[in-house]
Amino acid sequence: MQVEPIAHIRTCYGEKFGIPRQPGLVEEAWGRIEFTPDYAVQDALRGLEGFSHLWLIFWFHQAAETTWKPTVRPPRLGGNQRVGVFSSRSPFRPNPLGLSVVAIDRIEEVDSGSVIHVKGVDLVDGTPVLDIKPYIPYSDAYPEAESGYVTGIPPKLTVKWMVERPEARLARLIEMTLANDPRPAYQKDSARTYGCMIENVNVSWRANEGEIQITGLEVLDIDRHTIKGN
Amino acid sequence: MQVEPIAHIRTCYGEKFGIPRQPGLVEEAWGRIEFTPDYAVQDALRGLEGFSHLWLIFWFHQAAETTWKPTVRPPRLGGNQRVGVFSSRSPFRPNPLGLSVVAIDRIEEVDSGSVIHVKGVDLVDGTPVLDIKPYIPYSDAYPEAESGYVTGIPPKLTVKWMVERPEARLARLIEMTLANDPRPAYQKDSARTYGCMIENVNVSWRANEGEIQITGLEVLDIDRHTIKGN
Repeated sequence: MQVEPIAHIRTCYGEKFGIPRQPGLVEEAWGRIEFTPDYAVQDALRGLEGFSHLWLIFWFHQAAETTWKPTVRPPRLGGNQRVGVFSSRSPFRPNPLGLSVVAIDRIEEVDSGSVIHVKGVDLVDGTPVLDIKPYIPYSDAYPEAESGYVTGIPPKLTVKWMVERPEARLARLIEMTLANDPRPAYQKDSARTYGCMIENVNVSWRANEGEIQITGLEVLDIDRHTIKGN
Repeated sequence: MQVEPIAHIRTCYGEKFGIPRQPGLVEEAWGRIEFTPDYAVQDALRGLEGFSHLWLIFWFHQAAETTWKPTVRPPRLGGNQRVGVFSSRSPFRPNPLGLSVVAIDRIEEVDSGSVIHVKGVDLVDGTPVLDIKPYIPYSDAYPEAESGYVTGIPPKLTVKWMVERPEARLARLIEMTLANDPRPAYQKDSARTYGCMIENVNVSWRANEGEIQITGLEVLDIDRHTIKGN
C-alpha cells in the first residue's frame, strides 16, 4: 500500500526538541500547509472555511527509519515505565502515521493553489501531510473519554527572561512553548543549558524548580520559507 | 512511502451499503480487531485497558482503486451539492486513509495474540487497519468546534418489523442501523425494496415518510469468522 504527501507543513519548529507533545498545547504554534503540485487544487478545499478545526494525518518522517518496538516509554510516565506502542501516541510505530487536530486560522489563495494557515501545531517544519479531514464534533469529540495514564493537560512551568525580550508575538510563542517543559522526562538537570529552534531563533534556557529561565537568543540567518527535505 | 496492515477488523457489516456514515452512530455495531502475525504482540497493547476509546486509521480498500476528484457530494447535503474532498470524510481521497473513533468493549487474549472488541464501528468487514492510537480527550475532543455544513447528528427514522423479529441483540443492531436511513441521498424511493447485509442476515426493507419497514430476513450460510480478502 502506497501513500504520498498531498502537502508539507511549514511550522515554527525547526527541530524536534521543544515541540509540544500534543497538538493544541501552544495555541500560538503556527503552521502553514502548502500543497504539492498534484494536489494544489483550490476546489479540493471548497467548504473548509465553515470548519474551525481539521485533522492532519501525517508521516513521522524523522522516525520513519527506526525499527518499531512493542513498548515505548511515554514522557507522561516519567520516561521509565513502558506501555504498548498502540496505547501511546509515540512516533515510533509500525506505520509511522501521526494524527493531530489543529485550528484553522485562515485559508489563503496563492498562485500555486491554496495555503491553509493553522494554529496549535505539534509538528516539525517540513512534515509530509498525507490527508486533511474536517473535524466533526459529533463523531470526533468524546470529552468524557477515559484516557488511562494520560490524566489531563500537564502543568505549565513559569518562564522568565534573563535576556532582552523580543517582539511580543515571538516572545509569547517562545514562552508558551517552553512553559510545557520540553526536557526529556528522564533528564531534569538544573545545571544544564538546553537549546530550542523556534522560528529562526535559537533559544537557550535552563530549568530549575518549576521555572524556565531564558538565557540566550540567537537569530540565525536561515530562510524559513523553503520546504525542508524529508 | 509504504504502509501495511497491522490488523484487519471484522465487523457486523458485510457490505458497504447500510454502514453508518460516521462512527458512534450505532453503538451496537461491533467490530473485532485481529492483528496480522507480525503485529500480534500482546505487549503492544499494554495499558490500553485504561482507555475507553481508540482511533483507527484504516485503508478504504473498497475505494482505493478509484481515481480521486477535487470535489465530492456528501450525503449530508442531499447528494447534489459539491464540497472539496478535504472538506469531507469521503472515502474517495488522494490517499485512501480513513479515521474513526470506536469504543473499546474488551480486550481478549487469544493464542495468536490479542483481539480488541470494539463498538460503534462504521467499517466494512475485512477493512485493513494501519494504526491504533489511544483517544486522549485533552488533545482530541473539541465539542465546540464549528463544522460547517455538518450540523449535528442526522435525525433517526422509526423502524417497524413487518416480519418476525429475531433475538433481541440482533433485532436492536438491525433497528439501530436502519434508523440512520441508509438510502442514497439522491434516491428516496418509497416503492423500492432495499437489502442490507447485517451479520449473516440479508435484511430487506423499504422506507416511507420517515418510517423504515423491515419486510424480509434471510439468514445466509456464510462464515463470519474468516477474514475476507481485500
